[in-house]
Amino acid sequence: MSLDAVLSRIDADLAQAADRLLRFIAIPSVSTDPAHAADCRAAADWLAAELSGMGLDASVRPTDGHPMVVAHGGGTGRPLLFYGHYDVQPVDPLDLWDRDPFDAAIEETPQGRVIRGRGAADDKGQLMTFVEACRAWKAVHGTLPARLTFLFEGEEESGSPSLVPFLERNADELRADLALICDTGMFDRDTPAITTQLRGILGQEVTIHAADKDLHSGQFGGLAANPIRVLARIVAALHDDQGRVTVPGFYDGVTELPDDIRAQWQGLGFDAAAFLGSVGLSHPAGETGRDPLEMIWSRPTCEVNGIAGGYAGAGFKTVLPAQARAKISFRLVGDQDPQAIRAAFRDMVRGMLPPDCRATFADHGASRASRMRIDDPAFEAARRALSDEWPNDAAFVGAGGSIPIAGHFNELLGMDSMLVGFGRDDDRIHSPNEKYDMESFHKGMRSWARILQAITR
Amino acid sequence: MSLDAVLSRIDADLAQAADRLLRFIAIPSVSTDPAHAADCRAAADWLAAELSGMGLDASVRPTDGHPMVVAHGGGTGRPLLFYGHYDVQPVDPLDLWDRDPFDAAIEETPQGRVIRGRGAADDKGQLMTFVEACRAWKAVHGTLPARLTFLFEGEEESGSPSLVPFLERNADELRADLALICDTGMFDRDTPAITTQLRGILGQEVTIHAADKDLHSGQFGGLAANPIRVLARIVAALHDDQGRVTVPGFYDGVTELPDDIRAQWQGLGFDAAAFLGSVGLSHPAGETGRDPLEMIWSRPTCEVNGIAGGYAGAGFKTVLPAQARAKISFRLVGDQDPQAIRAAFRDMVRGMLPPDCRATFADHGASRASRMRIDDPAFEAARRALSDEWPNDAAFVGAGGSIPIAGHFNELLGMDSMLVGFGRDDDRIHSPNEKYDMESFHKGMRSWARILQAITR
Repeated sequence: MSLDAVLSRIDADLAQAADRLLRFIAIPSVSTDPAHAADCRAAADWLAAELSGMGLDASVRPTDGHPMVVAHGGGTGRPLLFYGHYDVQPVDPLDLWDRDPFDAAIEETPQGRVIRGRGAADDKGQLMTFVEACRAWKAVHGTLPARLTFLFEGEEESGSPSLVPFLERNADELRADLALICDTGMFDRDTPAITTQLRGILGQEVTIHAADKDLHSGQFGGLAANPIRVLARIVAALHDDQGRVTVPGFYDGVTELPDDIRAQWQGLGFDAAAFLGSVGLSHPAGETGRDPLEMIWSRPTCEVNGIAGGYAGAGFKTVLPAQARAKISFRLVGDQDPQAIRAAFRDMVRGMLPPDCRATFADHGASRASRMRIDDPAFEAARRALSDEWPNDAAFVGAGGSIPIAGHFNELLGMDSMLVGFGRDDDRIHSPNEKYDMESFHKGMRSWARILQAITR
Repeated sequence: MSLDAVLSRIDADLAQAADRLLRFIAIPSVSTDPAHAADCRAAADWLAAELSGMGLDASVRPTDGHPMVVAHGGGTGRPLLFYGHYDVQPVDPLDLWDRDPFDAAIEETPQGRVIRGRGAADDKGQLMTFVEACRAWKAVHGTLPARLTFLFEGEEESGSPSLVPFLERNADELRADLALICDTGMFDRDTPAITTQLRGILGQEVTIHAADKDLHSGQFGGLAANPIRVLARIVAALHDDQGRVTVPGFYDGVTELPDDIRAQWQGLGFDAAAFLGSVGLSHPAGETGRDPLEMIWSRPTCEVNGIAGGYAGAGFKTVLPAQARAKISFRLVGDQDPQAIRAAFRDMVRGMLPPDCRATFADHGASRASRMRIDDPAFEAARRALSDEWPNDAAFVGAGGSIPIAGHFNELLGMDSMLVGFGRDDDRIHSPNEKYDMESFHKGMRSWARILQAITR
């Protein structure tokens, strides 16, 4: 059988595939840090070379930021586009890593073998599951299972500023029947998942300015405005005592979960205590009266991702700083409008400023929530294919993270997305000691082979 | 006349004195940063060598932290101790400096010539006014005007952890009739000041901990506790709407300003608009219903000097951090007890912690407020001596900053302190582009010669 041959080829090539992934991780493609621009370019070049080596027509395409990689191959069958991102998150705090984050290696752990390094899971390991599945398919069949387009971006971890212009400029080249995206996770260790709804995101940075220079808190303290105190009041005011976001109009467009979806999610038996316990927590800290799964999959949030002002290094400095800033992300659901929330947030901040203080703002991405149309038969076919590979049947799930690309594909290319991934909750993505399970990598490749067989035949 | 000869000698030696100060500033003795420990030692060595070169019996004395410099000279006359500190504040943010902070130079400005560099005013330039006055005195008279002890510490900008043990261990050697301290400022450009009351200080650092690792805000946001949000609520709660500090019992021991002192201060004609205007502000932001001078000289405060949590670098990172921290200083007056406030602050923080969060604390110094006994005739004599040097008569003033050494001298050595200094409000101490006016340096040396003449004859 042709699928069995592909799966056998994947099994036989596993060590080589892992070596390729380790080399890919070794390129420190941190997109948000300008010091790593050349590394991002190197990662794009590496991917393009891999795809060319598989016989695809691959190229690195310049943008105003980090480049895109685009490749085409396979002349017949349903047109599919596969998307991933080659950039990774910053690695700080570096001292919390047990190894150099870019000197990746396979480690034995009590939970099995893992690939340890920045980007092992998010998204280098995940995107390579698809690339390697295609490599095996090509090796067995001499061709690809469908008319395939690959699109890899290098700015996913830094707000994707070049993505929309690139999609608009190259819409005809990139348009397909369906997009496949590998940047999500399993529901649990044994249960694969197809993510059918995603929260949107609005990233905002606010800086509060007071004096035109840093002041001595002995000389001016108690008389001059302190921007840290002003910022703290603003941040504290963003939620009420019930954990609800107080930005005016924030909940416009937020709908309650439909009963059938709620029933399906409740059937998943999500263990909130274990989920929180895995990171040393025990108490759901979100909106009062909401289920934990609802909090992370289908309720909007406001989180402060960073705050800085004054002197926070070793020792003490009696400074009254000239400014203080916070980075704030809103996760959006339903029909929440990021632009309306952006305006309401900024108005709220300005309305809380005392005399002598002013606020400046910066944007860090904005995208609406997405909900997939799972009546496309490919979704059920893929769900059965995944169920053949893993111990438990696959589930249709929501996701708390934001993958704006799905919304962009829908709006700009008129294309739905199928989100399948093999990440696990303990992968520590965006954190020190990120890893990707060898099982995720191996069975992820096999899963894609099964899905490609199922949705293209 | 002997005083005139000393003043002439100071005038003639001004260029050489400035050169010595520039070399002193070039030693980057940042005490709070362990990377500069060797530089602190080098600054101590430099001072000891200067004092030895003037014929004093000078030595560098080890402590558990940065060393002390102690020197003795002059066999007769009233025993006096002069105190200063050779350590300086950190220089960040470095990019806001117009020159290398340790490559100090004399610059022409519209307000006259200034010595620009970290420590030019605080405290290297100030302490050298006294050293240079003594050098000139010695050159003219062959001896010093009194039995003088010099004490220079290297941890004033980092909480002085070694100071009290050193004073206790060497009390007999260091005890004098009166301490002279040069770490304060002029009342205004033309009005010298003797500081007769000082606020105390309590430095506290609080870290809020939640999850045992940094989390992805998409995966956990809205469900897991966010320590930045918790910290912001605590910081926001430290003041009420009237600008009063809410720590329970904080105002115990705070007394109202006596009528005579209030009248004297009102007579100084403090221009709050000009004071705030010099740093781009216009609005007294402290307690409602208090005079601006009262706010900075005789009211207690609570200021946040630093805050940090999550990712605050370039770009954006959707992290839910494991911890967030703030550095907070309380300025104390009257009989406020730093230890009682420390306990009440910590209890208040613990009382505001939601489930899954805990707080850890660090101490950064604690000292009570000081008030000098100005009935010692030396105070009036020094006031007249200063009035002879400067355009306006000298004033007895309060000070917003904390100089814990005055309290320690009183408690441990039974010795009052006379605080005279020549800093100006625009010296940018603790900030980028710190400077010390050449006029402050020159007339400061001359002022000390006059004061020494007046209080020792």
